[in-house]
Amino acid sequence: KRQQKSKHEQNDLTKKTQSCTLPITCFILEIILIILFGVLVEYDEDTDAKKFNKHFNTSMEHSDAENDFYYRYPSFQDVHVMIFIGFGFLMTFLQRYGFSSVGFNFLIAAFSLQWATLMQGFFHGMHGGKIHIGVESMINADFCTGSVLISFGAVLGKTSPVQLMIMAMFEVTLFSVNEFILLSILGTRDAGGSMTIHTFGAYFGLMVTRILYRPNLHKSKHRNGSVYHSDLFAMIGTIYLWMFWPSFNSAVTEHGDAQHRTAMNTYYSLAACTLSSYAMSSLTAHDGKLDMVHIQNAALAGGVAVGTAGEMMLTPFGSMIVGFLAGIISVLGFKYLSPILEEKLKIQDTCGVHNLHGMPGILGAIVGAVTASLATKEVYGNGLGRVFPDVADGREASYQGGIQAVSLAVTLGIALIGGLIVGFILKLPVFGAPHDTTCYEDSLYWEVSMMILMLMMVFSFNKTFCFHLDYCKITDN
Amino acid sequence: KRQQKSKHEQNDLTKKTQSCTLPITCFILEIILIILFGVLVEYDEDTDAKKFNKHFNTSMEHSDAENDFYYRYPSFQDVHVMIFIGFGFLMTFLQRYGFSSVGFNFLIAAFSLQWATLMQGFFHGMHGGKIHIGVESMINADFCTGSVLISFGAVLGKTSPVQLMIMAMFEVTLFSVNEFILLSILGTRDAGGSMTIHTFGAYFGLMVTRILYRPNLHKSKHRNGSVYHSDLFAMIGTIYLWMFWPSFNSAVTEHGDAQHRTAMNTYYSLAACTLSSYAMSSLTAHDGKLDMVHIQNAALAGGVAVGTAGEMMLTPFGSMIVGFLAGIISVLGFKYLSPILEEKLKIQDTCGVHNLHGMPGILGAIVGAVTASLATKEVYGNGLGRVFPDVADGREASYQGGIQAVSLAVTLGIALIGGLIVGFILKLPVFGAPHDTTCYEDSLYWEVSMMILMLMMVFSFNKTFCFHLDYCKITDN
Amino acid sequence: KRQQKSKHEQNDLTKKTQSCTLPITCFILEIILIILFGVLVEYDEDTDAKKFNKHFNTSMEHSDAENDFYYRYPSFQDVHVMIFIGFGFLMTFLQRYGFSSVGFNFLIAAFSLQWATLMQGFFHGMHGGKIHIGVESMINADFCTGSVLISFGAVLGKTSPVQLMIMAMFEVTLFSVNEFILLSILGTRDAGGSMTIHTFGAYFGLMVTRILYRPNLHKSKHRNGSVYHSDLFAMIGTIYLWMFWPSFNSAVTEHGDAQHRTAMNTYYSLAACTLSSYAMSSLTAHDGKLDMVHIQNAALAGGVAVGTAGEMMLTPFGSMIVGFLAGIISVLGFKYLSPILEEKLKIQDTCGVHNLHGMPGILGAIVGAVTASLATKEVYGNGLGRVFPDVADGREASYQGGIQAVSLAVTLGIALIGGLIVGFILKLPVFGAPHDTTCYEDSLYWEVSMMILMLMMVFSFNKTFCFHLDYCKITDN
Repeated sequence: KRQQKSKHEQNDLTKKTQSCTLPITCFILEIILIILFGVLVEYDEDTDAKKFNKHFNTSMEHSDAENDFYYRYPSFQDVHVMIFIGFGFLMTFLQRYGFSSVGFNFLIAAFSLQWATLMQGFFHGMHGGKIHIGVESMINADFCTGSVLISFGAVLGKTSPVQLMIMAMFEVTLFSVNEFILLSILGTRDAGGSMTIHTFGAYFGLMVTRILYRPNLHKSKHRNGSVYHSDLFAMIGTIYLWMFWPSFNSAVTEHGDAQHRTAMNTYYSLAACTLSSYAMSSLTAHDGKLDMVHIQNAALAGGVAVGTAGEMMLTPFGSMIVGFLAGIISVLGFKYLSPILEEKLKIQDTCGVHNLHGMPGILGAIVGAVTASLATKEVYGNGLGRVFPDVADGREASYQGGIQAVSLAVTLGIALIGGLIVGFILKLPVFGAPHDTTCYEDSLYWEVSMMILMLMMVFSFNKTFCFHLDYCKITDN
Repeated sequence: KRQQKSKHEQNDLTKKTQSCTLPITCFILEIILIILFGVLVEYDEDTDAKKFNKHFNTSMEHSDAENDFYYRYPSFQDVHVMIFIGFGFLMTFLQRYGFSSVGFNFLIAAFSLQWATLMQGFFHGMHGGKIHIGVESMINADFCTGSVLISFGAVLGKTSPVQLMIMAMFEVTLFSVNEFILLSILGTRDAGGSMTIHTFGAYFGLMVTRILYRPNLHKSKHRNGSVYHSDLFAMIGTIYLWMFWPSFNSAVTEHGDAQHRTAMNTYYSLAACTLSSYAMSSLTAHDGKLDMVHIQNAALAGGVAVGTAGEMMLTPFGSMIVGFLAGIISVLGFKYLSPILEEKLKIQDTCGVHNLHGMPGILGAIVGAVTASLATKEVYGNGLGRVFPDVADGREASYQGGIQAVSLAVTLGIALIGGLIVGFILKLPVFGAPHDTTCYEDSLYWEVSMMILMLMMVFSFNKTFCFHLDYCKITDN
Repeated sequence: KRQQKSKHEQNDLTKKTQSCTLPITCFILEIILIILFGVLVEYDEDTDAKKFNKHFNTSMEHSDAENDFYYRYPSFQDVHVMIFIGFGFLMTFLQRYGFSSVGFNFLIAAFSLQWATLMQGFFHGMHGGKIHIGVESMINADFCTGSVLISFGAVLGKTSPVQLMIMAMFEVTLFSVNEFILLSILGTRDAGGSMTIHTFGAYFGLMVTRILYRPNLHKSKHRNGSVYHSDLFAMIGTIYLWMFWPSFNSAVTEHGDAQHRTAMNTYYSLAACTLSSYAMSSLTAHDGKLDMVHIQNAALAGGVAVGTAGEMMLTPFGSMIVGFLAGIISVLGFKYLSPILEEKLKIQDTCGVHNLHGMPGILGAIVGAVTASLATKEVYGNGLGRVFPDVADGREASYQGGIQAVSLAVTLGIALIGGLIVGFILKLPVFGAPHDTTCYEDSLYWEVSMMILMLMMVFSFNKTFCFHLDYCKITDN
C-alpha cells in the first residue's frame, strides 16, 4: 500500500511537472530559434531569387538544372523519411510505447533540425556574419538530428519529453563541435557519418543511459517487450531505413560519380549484411528460430559500416565484405554483449544502439581509415581531388588514413565526455523523469482511452494479473 | 423492437441500393472519362515521341535533361504519396472505419485525378482544341484531388461511397472554376494552394457536412473514436504528409531557386509548427498530457499556412513565425472551436478539417497577400518576374496584395455556395447514406469476418455490452 | 494421439533441419556471391572515379548532371520501395504470417538482387570479361527480384525460408536466360516487364505451387485468412505498389520523353483500373459489399497490363482502356477462376498471383504486340528509334508485333518448364517444408512470445476452441 501511495505521489508530481515544463520548454526554445533565425540566417546562392538570377540574360546565365536542388532534393527526402518514419517506427516495437516512440521522435527531430541549422551554420556555414542555408544544410541538419535519435534509442522509455529536448539541445551542439573538428580542422572524410553520426550518437547515448542507470528498472520489465503488431510497425521503420540508406550515405558527397558510387556500395553492403544477419540470428538461437530484434536492427548495420568508405573506391566486393561482417558483429552484440553491458557496466540500452550504431560505426571508421590510406592517383584518376581534396593537394594517403583513425578517437572522446556531463544535467528533478514503475508507458504522457489500456493489460505479461471491467469479469479458477 | 426493425429495413435498403449504385456509378463515370480522354487529350511537348525529338540531330536539339520530367517527377511522387498514403492513413484513426478511410480515399482519388485532368485542362490547358498533359498536369490533378480528400475528411464516416463519388465530381468541377478565376483571370499566386486547395476544400466540406447534419449522430458515437493501433496507423499518414509537404508546396513553382526556396520555407515552417502544437496540446490539457488528435493534425498546419507565401522571399524566419502561429491556432481550434461549431452551427466535422485546413488556409492566404504586397525589385532582383510576372510587368505590388486578398473572398464564396448546393444533391436517397446507427462502420461496405467484429466489440465503448461466443462466454456480475 | 505424435516429430525434424540449414544456406550463398563479385564485377563509366572524370578539364568534359544517377536514381528508389515495402506488406494480410511475409520477402529479395546482378551482368553486361554495374543494373536487379517475389506470393505460407532461397536461386537464373532471349536475341520491347517480370514470375510460381500441391492443406485453413489490422498492413503494400508503378514501368526506358510518357500512361491505366476493380468487386458480391482481397490486388492489375506498351505511343486513352479491362479480368479471376484452379488443377495460389500478375501480364503482352505492330514513323517521328530501334533500322512494325507475341510464348514456356523442375527440387526433404498443419504460421520460424500466440488464437476461427491461460480462465456458462 505504501509503495503504491508513493508511486501515486510520484505520478502526480510527474504530471504537474510535465504540465508546466513541456509547454514552457517548447515555447521558449522555439522563440529563441525564431529570433536567432531572424538575426543570423539568409538564403544561399541557390535559394535566393536575386542571387540565383543575378546573371539572367547575360552570357554567364546558368541553367535552372544546375541548381543544387536537383542534385540533392530526392536524397534529402529519402533521408527525411529515414529520420521521421525510419527511426520513429523502428522504436514502436515496445508494446505500450508506440505513441511516445513516434511522437517524441517527431518532437525532438523537429527541434533538432532547427537547432542544428544554427549550430552547423555557426561552425561552417558563415558568410559575412550570416548563415547561408539551402538543401545541403537541410540534409546536414537531418543528419545531426539522426545522431540525436540514435541516443534517444538508448534511453527510450526511461526519459520524459523535456529531458529529451534538453538532451537534444546539448547533443546537437556537441555534434557540431565534433563535426567541425573532424571535417573542417582535420580534413577527415565521413560523408555517411560512420563517425560523426553513428559512433557519436551511440556512445553519447550509451553514456547518458549509464548515468541515468535505474537499479529498479525490472519493475517496468513486463512492458519492455514487443507484441505481434508492434513488431510489424517496427518493421516499417527497419525497411525504410534499409531502403533509403544508399541515399543517406550519398546525400552530401560530391555530385556525379561520387553520389552514384556511394549509393551502389551501400546497396550491396546492406544486401550482404541482411544475409549474414539472418544466418547469425538463426544460428545463435537454440532452436534455429529467427529473432525479430536481430532482423529489425542487425540487417541495417551494413549501412552504418560503409558510412565513411562508401564514397571511396571500396568496390562492391569490399562493401559486401564489410556488410557481411557488420551483420555478424551486430547479432553477436545483441545476443552476448548487451546482457553483459547491462549487468556489468550498468548500461540499459533499450534499442541496442551499441549493436546497430556503436560497433558498426567503429567498424566503418576503421574501414574508412584503411581505404583512405590505400588511395592512389592510379585508382581514382582525376577523381582523386573530389574524394580526397587534401591528398590531391599533396597529403600522403597513409597520413589521411591516420587522420581518419585519430578522428574516431576524437569522436569517442567527445561523445563519452559529453554524454557524462549531459547525463548528470538530465538528472535534475525539474525535467521530470518517469518513475521506475512507469517506464515504457504511453499513458504517462498521452491521452489513451481507458478501454484500450485494459485490453493492453491482457497483452502485458503479468503473472498475477486479473481482468476487471465494470460490466464484465473474468474470474480465476 | 420497432426501432430495431426499422433499422434492419434501413440496412437492407442501403445494401440493395449500394449493390446496384456503386458498380453502376463507377462504370458509367469511368466510361465517360475514357471517351472524353479519347476525344480531348493529347501528349504534350515533353511526353510525345515526335514533338520532343523534333529537333533531333539539328542545332536546336535539346538535352533529355531539359525534359520537365526531371524537374518535377520526384516532387510528383511525393505529392502522390501524400494523397494516397498521407490522406488515406491520416483518416484511419477511427476504430472501425480503417478499410473505408483508406479504401474510399483510394477510390475517390483515382476518380478525381482523371476528372481533374479534364476539368483543369479544359480551363487552362487547351491547345488547338486538345488538352495537353504531362507531369505538371498530373501534379495539378493530384492537387485538385487533395482538395476533394479534405472535404472527405469533414464528412468521414457519414456518407456512402456513391455520395462521395458524386461529391468528388461536383467538387472537382468547382475547384477548377475557382482555380481558373484565381490563377488565370486575377493573376493570383498560390503555388502551394493555401486558397485553391486547403481553404476551398475545407469550407466546401464543412458546408456539405452542415447540410447533411444528423441530429441523432450520437447513436454512432461509440465508434467515433480511436483505438491504440488505429492511432499508430494514423501517425503514418501524419508523418508522410509532414515530410513531403515541402515537395507539395514546391511542386509547381518555377524551376530553380523558386522550387528550392519553397521547399526550404515549408520545411522550417513545419518544424516550428510542430513545437508549438506539442506545447499547446500539453498546455490545454488539464493534466499536461498530449492528445494524439492534436499531434496528428495541428503539426501539419504549418505546411498549409505557407502554401501561398512559400515561393516568395518569406525567409525561414518569416516561415517559422507563420508555422508557429498556425500550430497554436490549430490546437485551439480543436480544443475550443470545434465543439462550438458542432453545437451552435451544427457542423459535424469528423476530422476537424476546419482546424487543419480551414483556418490555417485563411492564415496562409493573408500571409501571402501581405508578402506579395511587400515585393520589391530590390529583394527579388531579376527573379521578380519568375515569382510575380504581373508585378514585373508593371502591376503595383500592393495591388497584387489586394488581388490575393480578393482571391480569398472568391474562394470562400465559391466553396460555401458550392457546398450548399452539392450538400442538397447528396441528400437524394438514391445515393444511399448510412443510417445514424451505422456511421463510422466498415462492415456496412466491406466484407469483414464475423470473428473479428466480435473482438472489435470489446474495443468499442459500450456500457451494456456482453461478450458471447458459441464456445466461450464472459458473464456480467 | 498418433497423429499428434507424428506431427510433433515432424515439427521437431523441421526445427532441427532449419536450425542447421538456414544459416548454412545463407552463409554459403553469400560467400559465393562475395567471391564472384570480387572476380567479376567492376564500376561502370558513371560510378568509377577515374573513368567518369577522365576528361576533366578538357574540352570533352561532361557535366555531373549527365551522370545516369540523376536520370534514374529517383525511379530506382521508388522501385526499391515497391520491392521491399510493396511486396512485403501486400503479403501481410495473413493473420499469423506477418513476420514471415515481410521477413522472408526481405531475405530473399536481399539475396536475389545480388545474384541477379551477376546473372544479368553475365548475359548482357559483360565488358572485357567484367560485369559493369551502375544504377541501371541496380534497377534491373530489383526487377528480377520482383519476379521472384511474385512467385513467393503463389507459395506463401507453405514453404520454408531455405526452400525460398533455393527457389530464388534457380528463378533468378531462368529469369536472366528468358530476359536475354527476349531483349538481346529477339529484340523484344518490354520496359515494364509485363512478360519478363509478371508473366514469368506468375507462371513459374504457379507451376511450383502445383508441384508442391498439398491435399491436406485444409488443416491450416483457419489461418489462411486475414484479420482487421492485417488487412490494413496489407493496404500499405497495395498503395505503395499503386503509387510507384509509374516509376517501375518507366525506370529503364530511354531518357526524356520515353520515361515521361511511360509514367503518365501507367498513372492513367491504374486510375481506370481502380474504378473497374471497385465496380466489379461490389458487383460480384451477393450484397454489394467490397472485398479487401480484390481492392488489394485487382486495383494494381492496370500497372501490370501496361508494362510492355507503356513506353509506346499508347496514349492515355489507350492506357485507360487497358487498365479498365485489367481490373475487370483480375476481379473475375479472384472470384471465379481461382477456386476452379485450386479444385480442378490443384493450384493452391495463396495470394492469387494468377489474377494480379498472370492474366494481366498476358494482357499486357498482347497489348504490347498490337501497339508495336501499329508503330509508324508518322506517329513517333524521330523518336521511333528510341522506342523501337529495330523498326527504325528497317524491321517491319508488324514483324516487331509478331516478335512480341512470340516472346510471350517463350516466356510462358520457360516459366512453366522451369517451375516444373524447380518444384521437384524443392520437394527434397533437406529443405524442410512445414507440415500441413503448420502452414501460414509464424511461430515455426520466429520467436513469438507465448502470450501473444494465445491471444491470436482468439482471432483464429476454430469452432471447438477454448481459452485457457495458466493464471486466468474464461469459463463456459
